[in-house]
Amino acid sequence: MRLGVCYYPEQWPEAWWADDARQMMALGIRQVRIAEFAWSRIEPEPGRFDWGWLDRAVQTLATAGLQIVLGTPTATPPKWLVDLEPSVLPVGADGWVRGFGSRRHYDFSSDAYLAEACRITRAVAERYGRHPAVIAWQTDNEYGCHDTVLSYSAQAVRRFRLWLQARYGGIDSLNAAWGTVFWSQAYASFDAVDAPVGTVTEAIPAQRLDYQRFASDEVVRFNRAQCEILRECSPGRAITHNAMLFFTAFDHHALAADLDFVSWDSYPLGGLENFWFDAPTKQRWLRSGHPDFAAFHHDLYRGMSRQPFWVMEQQPGPVNWGAWNPAPAPGMVRLWTWEAFAHGAEAVSYFRWRQAPFAQEQMHAGLQTPDRRFDVGADEARQVALELQCVPESTAQRAPVALVLDYASLWAAQVQPQGADENPLRAAFDAYSALRSLGLDIDVVGPEATLQGYVLVVLPAQTLVGDTLLRELRETSTQVFIYPRAGAKTDSLSVPEGLPPGRLRELIELRVQRVESLRPGTGVGLQWESEHHIALRWREFVEPGLGVRIEARFDDGWPALLRQGRTRYLAARVDAALERRLLEAAATEAGLAPVRLPDGLRLRRRGDMLLVMNYDDADHEVSVPSARWLVGGARVPAHGVSIAQYNAESAS
Amino acid sequence: MRLGVCYYPEQWPEAWWADDARQMMALGIRQVRIAEFAWSRIEPEPGRFDWGWLDRAVQTLATAGLQIVLGTPTATPPKWLVDLEPSVLPVGADGWVRGFGSRRHYDFSSDAYLAEACRITRAVAERYGRHPAVIAWQTDNEYGCHDTVLSYSAQAVRRFRLWLQARYGGIDSLNAAWGTVFWSQAYASFDAVDAPVGTVTEAIPAQRLDYQRFASDEVVRFNRAQCEILRECSPGRAITHNAMLFFTAFDHHALAADLDFVSWDSYPLGGLENFWFDAPTKQRWLRSGHPDFAAFHHDLYRGMSRQPFWVMEQQPGPVNWGAWNPAPAPGMVRLWTWEAFAHGAEAVSYFRWRQAPFAQEQMHAGLQTPDRRFDVGADEARQVALELQCVPESTAQRAPVALVLDYASLWAAQVQPQGADENPLRAAFDAYSALRSLGLDIDVVGPEATLQGYVLVVLPAQTLVGDTLLRELRETSTQVFIYPRAGAKTDSLSVPEGLPPGRLRELIELRVQRVESLRPGTGVGLQWESEHHIALRWREFVEPGLGVRIEARFDDGWPALLRQGRTRYLAARVDAALERRLLEAAATEAGLAPVRLPDGLRLRRRGDMLLVMNYDDADHEVSVPSARWLVGGARVPAHGVSIAQYNAESAS
Amino acid sequence: MRLGVCYYPEQWPEAWWADDARQMMALGIRQVRIAEFAWSRIEPEPGRFDWGWLDRAVQTLATAGLQIVLGTPTATPPKWLVDLEPSVLPVGADGWVRGFGSRRHYDFSSDAYLAEACRITRAVAERYGRHPAVIAWQTDNEYGCHDTVLSYSAQAVRRFRLWLQARYGGIDSLNAAWGTVFWSQAYASFDAVDAPVGTVTEAIPAQRLDYQRFASDEVVRFNRAQCEILRECSPGRAITHNAMLFFTAFDHHALAADLDFVSWDSYPLGGLENFWFDAPTKQRWLRSGHPDFAAFHHDLYRGMSRQPFWVMEQQPGPVNWGAWNPAPAPGMVRLWTWEAFAHGAEAVSYFRWRQAPFAQEQMHAGLQTPDRRFDVGADEARQVALELQCVPESTAQRAPVALVLDYASLWAAQVQPQGADENPLRAAFDAYSALRSLGLDIDVVGPEATLQGYVLVVLPAQTLVGDTLLRELRETSTQVFIYPRAGAKTDSLSVPEGLPPGRLRELIELRVQRVESLRPGTGVGLQWESEHHIALRWREFVEPGLGVRIEARFDDGWPALLRQGRTRYLAARVDAALERRLLEAAATEAGLAPVRLPDGLRLRRRGDMLLVMNYDDADHEVSVPSARWLVGGARVPAHGVSIAQYNAESAS
Repeated sequence: MRLGVCYYPEQWPEAWWADDARQMMALGIRQVRIAEFAWSRIEPEPGRFDWGWLDRAVQTLATAGLQIVLGTPTATPPKWLVDLEPSVLPVGADGWVRGFGSRRHYDFSSDAYLAEACRITRAVAERYGRHPAVIAWQTDNEYGCHDTVLSYSAQAVRRFRLWLQARYGGIDSLNAAWGTVFWSQAYASFDAVDAPVGTVTEAIPAQRLDYQRFASDEVVRFNRAQCEILRECSPGRAITHNAMLFFTAFDHHALAADLDFVSWDSYPLGGLENFWFDAPTKQRWLRSGHPDFAAFHHDLYRGMSRQPFWVMEQQPGPVNWGAWNPAPAPGMVRLWTWEAFAHGAEAVSYFRWRQAPFAQEQMHAGLQTPDRRFDVGADEARQVALELQCVPESTAQRAPVALVLDYASLWAAQVQPQGADENPLRAAFDAYSALRSLGLDIDVVGPEATLQGYVLVVLPAQTLVGDTLLRELRETSTQVFIYPRAGAKTDSLSVPEGLPPGRLRELIELRVQRVESLRPGTGVGLQWESEHHIALRWREFVEPGLGVRIEARFDDGWPALLRQGRTRYLAARVDAALERRLLEAAATEAGLAPVRLPDGLRLRRRGDMLLVMNYDDADHEVSVPSARWLVGGARVPAHGVSIAQYNAESAS
Repeated sequence: MRLGVCYYPEQWPEAWWADDARQMMALGIRQVRIAEFAWSRIEPEPGRFDWGWLDRAVQTLATAGLQIVLGTPTATPPKWLVDLEPSVLPVGADGWVRGFGSRRHYDFSSDAYLAEACRITRAVAERYGRHPAVIAWQTDNEYGCHDTVLSYSAQAVRRFRLWLQARYGGIDSLNAAWGTVFWSQAYASFDAVDAPVGTVTEAIPAQRLDYQRFASDEVVRFNRAQCEILRECSPGRAITHNAMLFFTAFDHHALAADLDFVSWDSYPLGGLENFWFDAPTKQRWLRSGHPDFAAFHHDLYRGMSRQPFWVMEQQPGPVNWGAWNPAPAPGMVRLWTWEAFAHGAEAVSYFRWRQAPFAQEQMHAGLQTPDRRFDVGADEARQVALELQCVPESTAQRAPVALVLDYASLWAAQVQPQGADENPLRAAFDAYSALRSLGLDIDVVGPEATLQGYVLVVLPAQTLVGDTLLRELRETSTQVFIYPRAGAKTDSLSVPEGLPPGRLRELIELRVQRVESLRPGTGVGLQWESEHHIALRWREFVEPGLGVRIEARFDDGWPALLRQGRTRYLAARVDAALERRLLEAAATEAGLAPVRLPDGLRLRRRGDMLLVMNYDDADHEVSVPSARWLVGGARVPAHGVSIAQYNAESAS
Repeated sequence: MRLGVCYYPEQWPEAWWADDARQMMALGIRQVRIAEFAWSRIEPEPGRFDWGWLDRAVQTLATAGLQIVLGTPTATPPKWLVDLEPSVLPVGADGWVRGFGSRRHYDFSSDAYLAEACRITRAVAERYGRHPAVIAWQTDNEYGCHDTVLSYSAQAVRRFRLWLQARYGGIDSLNAAWGTVFWSQAYASFDAVDAPVGTVTEAIPAQRLDYQRFASDEVVRFNRAQCEILRECSPGRAITHNAMLFFTAFDHHALAADLDFVSWDSYPLGGLENFWFDAPTKQRWLRSGHPDFAAFHHDLYRGMSRQPFWVMEQQPGPVNWGAWNPAPAPGMVRLWTWEAFAHGAEAVSYFRWRQAPFAQEQMHAGLQTPDRRFDVGADEARQVALELQCVPESTAQRAPVALVLDYASLWAAQVQPQGADENPLRAAFDAYSALRSLGLDIDVVGPEATLQGYVLVVLPAQTLVGDTLLRELRETSTQVFIYPRAGAKTDSLSVPEGLPPGRLRELIELRVQRVESLRPGTGVGLQWESEHHIALRWREFVEPGLGVRIEARFDDGWPALLRQGRTRYLAARVDAALERRLLEAAATEAGLAPVRLPDGLRLRRRGDMLLVMNYDDADHEVSVPSARWLVGGARVPAHGVSIAQYNAESAS
């Protein structure tokens, strides 16, 4: 695994560049990402290019021995472009045009912007595409950041109508699919359809789902155009995009199809602070991040990559964009880096070389402080660089457990949550976290993935069930663990024939007659084996078919956990303890050897190594028989890492 | 009492209709509401009517023996109409035009829409108005739902100016009434007046009250136009409208004047979840609804009807529009139906026959699930249908207690709440609930009602005091119980001469010198008889006149409960226990026999029957001497109902 | 000290005026503010003036012996003006033009409005400027109230560009200062710059700070234009403006430079309810206001005045604009009045003579209720008027402690708070409160003030450090106590060279390497002397230079309190107990004699008097050796005041 860094030569005096490059190499950094926000420096006026500075920067870095990742600068159209072509700006759900003055101020549906993005991409790619130091390209930057996937501009609506026409053929099909007979919402033509926004109350849910699908397709179209130019002008270089944390507004599987691999930007503390975790959880992991945050994303983005994935931006210290921004505990930058390695990363690139003293992110740490001195993150990066020399290269093997994550299913559940705190992504994360707390390695896979070879498949949020998934589930002999709401909708966001779980009835014969969502503070007791637990937030009233066994019941007698052959169906969200127990039982039955890890301790295998990550602020002892320690040892200190090379398997 | 159902033949294959009708009859359903959202099916293009399907639907239902309630489809103008006449769309307080794509996307002040609404109403009424199976009409659907009473369009402002001219005659009267001398807000002409929206800070309160009055009058105007057409084209059929829960944005008394009776849509679980109740209350009644929710609305809408009222839509299972949507406890659909009967309902109509698998309300239960099987609500409806055969018809008699509810008084209090949690409707509901928890029957009456015959009159939220109310209060010999803020404003939303309670000083001589609102967690102790209680949220500093007796005092010595003859004035919001004790004392003094019912148990008399409703999740024993049980018995199970026929009176 | 009142003759029958004036005098009132909202009465139509009523009002008041303060009526442009010149209206951050119908509906950048404001100011000033009873002018009313400093109109943007040109000279300087190299935000000309609003995510922070500076300058420009006219037309009269509570959107020091003194509007209960205090604090001081609320503002506005300051509006009872509006405890109106005296006020003017029964503030108390009877506030005012006769005149002397408050520093901290609850004004208030709870007298001074003569200088929120402040700190020998974030930014809102505290390194050699913000419920322990405390919300990782002593350390070993010579630097927000202890230590070392006052008891010296204010609801005993009691005595009752004249000094 290589270490890398994000660097902005345009932000620093040219006189510093060579010294910066030298210091990077000395630290153990081997690759550097540049130029992804530099459009206005590359092309200060329409058509006038200033390549000099970038030529020199590339050369300086290359000369020092660094490999270069170039970003296309399309996330930040310059002011002159916005002034020339105001139609590039996106329109919010509130109807207002978003203005210049930050970033991502463009509309994915703007043909004018697409042309400009292609033009600058081609210009950069033609100039540097064959430079020997350039090893990879990053398209744009963090698609969707700041909630920018959906735009409600006239051009977006125009393209939405074309998209609908392509999907439905005739308007009658659309009316049928959307159920416009309800509330007299029928359309006479595609030209009569608008974006599902600004209505008196909720717009048709199928329309909302389609608008999300359309917008996702627009992102993919925009990215694909860049990829084609890069492949043409920069042969042999990998193409990636830096995806984000807990971000689901476009279909990353579809985007990944045009890339060589997906990289992602890992900010464990911001990812804890700004998302759904409750206050005790945020306090518990204040300085380490949630123990499964990074791992979840590693497994997700690895799963959609054809080459080993990268962490393109790794948090090196406090950030500026959380509601609160604590400093990582000492050791965490090192631990996060090793966690990426454990999951098969080929590169971890810190964001950023040096904290800029100006502009929006001036409070975001780097490896150096603005006064050119190393910050503590750099010390930990240096340590990893040294330790990496003791650890053999290896590739990540397939995990025994597959967790299916499907963006369209998330959208379908979000369009009509039915309970104010229903969050399908959280459901997926909770399932992942429960599995990982049992010491299991997990692949997060998409709905088109083959499931051959997995011994346990978990469907935590599978609102929609497509042909491939159904076939794979049917044709494998894996254990299948299905969460509530699975198969709850058709592709047109309707209740399926015969009621949920719809097509999944091929695996388990049951009928979800009604569902209920439950406000915080309420719940339904349930009995599983000798344990009494509680269902929370969501529960279903299920009629089991013949051949279905009831493995747990709610206190009111309705089935809570149902089983048919190798398939289990859980009819509620349940407390975390029960979720872990049920998955433990399923994993055991699948032939795995789950271990109940202490809170904060995590394991991951890569090649013949077992990595032990300790997110806890207390030390933990582990026992790994017939292994030798490459890094650390059996006593894993708080926020520490140990790495064992072994022939045997069990660890506890 | 008849059972009914809401049915949407346009949503189902025509081949199912006859079977649906047959099953309705078999279940005990005798009436069916149809067509209120079917405009785009009736008139798919401007001027082209497709009557065939509706003719056949009407005939199929009629043939099966069902009586038909027809809705005018004006709540859902079709897309073609909106495209032809964009001016029909309403404008929000944020200045944005609301768009097509859900329902209620029309402006009550749009003359263009009024003309269209009349045209379609006449078309439907001419076609079916004399059909023998058609027994009643529902105008539009749920006026005001999704906050649609107020529009801020140019046409609304234009009509507001005319309305002001009619109300005030000259601009000087308006300036005087509104107090525009304050902050230099004087108007030179009616044409200079705008809607009270978009100002830097609060607009003139009297202007805000007048805009609410105007908007309410617009709703009445819109409804009246339909009533006139229906009376002309469909002689002898009743006209109703389905009002909503806890909804006060227009004057329902004024609307009711054009109707034969008011019906309403009863959703006890959504009504608990989405309104002001605190978390413990929402947990306590999670699956039953608040024990006084339905009763309050029954008594309210019965009070403004000239014929027995209906429940037009009765919740049959979980809904989709609550923040959370739990399933009713087993038995509750039956209990809610009997509660309506107890209060004098002539019909209870379940919403809806079958859950549609598509569009906005696909998660809203019906008597059938989308796969044509009966859901649990149907079983309970069937039970009620059978039990009704054991219960004699009878009419609801006048109750001994009148609670006055006046929409303009609610608006006046809301315009300037003075405390962030002041809620006059909640005050009315709390008073109602306290009375009902004492086993008392209550009529909710408007400010123009005669009060002759009541032994106790309660004014929970009487901000404004009109001539009729004052005369009625003066001329009866009833006990009068007055809550704080009564008479606190003039019709022009000013402090009355001589300070509050203004004109009510004719009943009790006192002067509210100042008021205070109190944040949660603060209060003022008060002593009543030997009990110490607490004033919360609101309290007044009152100077009593001669002849006024102080029955309770705050700890700081100011009077808390004042009494003059048969009139009591309570100078604070108080804890629920004290509120109940004070009303108990007043009721006792009025010659009534209040009983302290266990939490969740409720009584209601109809004819010579006493109905006992148990909202609690524990059984309760009641004793009804010299009665015989028509339904159930002395032990009323959790969520159960017992009905006694009796000659005697007391129950405890 | 004089008592005064705000009076609106235009709101009452002319027949009442003489009696009102007579009653004012009888109560002890000696000055009266009028006419600041009367534009539409003075000029009912464009160019037609109606002076008659105001001539008579002025004469009536003068005849009774009252001195008159006239307000320019520019806070309330009449409807006819808005209709003639719609461009006077401001534009909100949401892009909507704010409308007529309340007050402050004007844009400080509107040249059209500036001309109109000057015209009406000149008209009023020419008519009454030399009237012998007129002693002072108030410009406009409460600049910035209802969040009206910032406007985003086209005219504001136009003037912002000119302002930028004047500040930066060339566009390259702007680009450098703002760091527009970040995210390709470079501007080619000043004309390309917009207001920092409506962007996809945060706009450039330096741009946001500059927009705030620009908007503040616009307020100063607007006010200065009125001052120039008033000085010309009304020679010898004082000019003031009534500033507001906890209000920082413009630079009050800059405004004050054009005034003779600043007055302010003191609403202790609203100031508690509507600001950052937590629920227990709001409950604790429900009816008294925070014990340091009024004092803080007295010391702030006195510090920027060249003559003794006034309280222009003093809360006399419940107000209408708090989220909740409790009544003051008996005695508080008197106590608040004496608190103003204690801090050197020359006048305290109650708002308002009589509660108007109409319009927006009808629920705001006055000295009289609308029925012309005295409310309880009047009784307390009368008592003060009598007591004032026992108390000698004197001037406020310089305090030993200076607390520096700098508006630009507040803005700089607010633009990028870095923690969701970071609030620099709160930091300043907390420091002030801690000092005052130690019985110390405090001057709040601006960043241009001389610090000669102070023995302790506290910098609670000094984000920016200007030349004057740095020189003053360097050249005095005072103890200096510096809070975190001091010197954290340059004038262009960048991290300073060598990291924070930037220029303050001249006083204490340290380097703030990183900072962190901490969510509620988290903190970092720290040890000071034998006490263990907790850092909350904000903490810094500081590298001390040589010669810096560590006086306290966090539990993780980093320095928490650093000391070099007479300068201390606190590297965190800390619990209130520790903050008080640290300031106590600094004050003691500075030669002061801090006393730990009981909760709610406060002291203030004026001349040779010591005033003791008891905000607590229990009595307290104080000991003031060798003093005689002018008002009250050693036992200070709850919500009471005692005044001692003394030669000695200590009180405890």
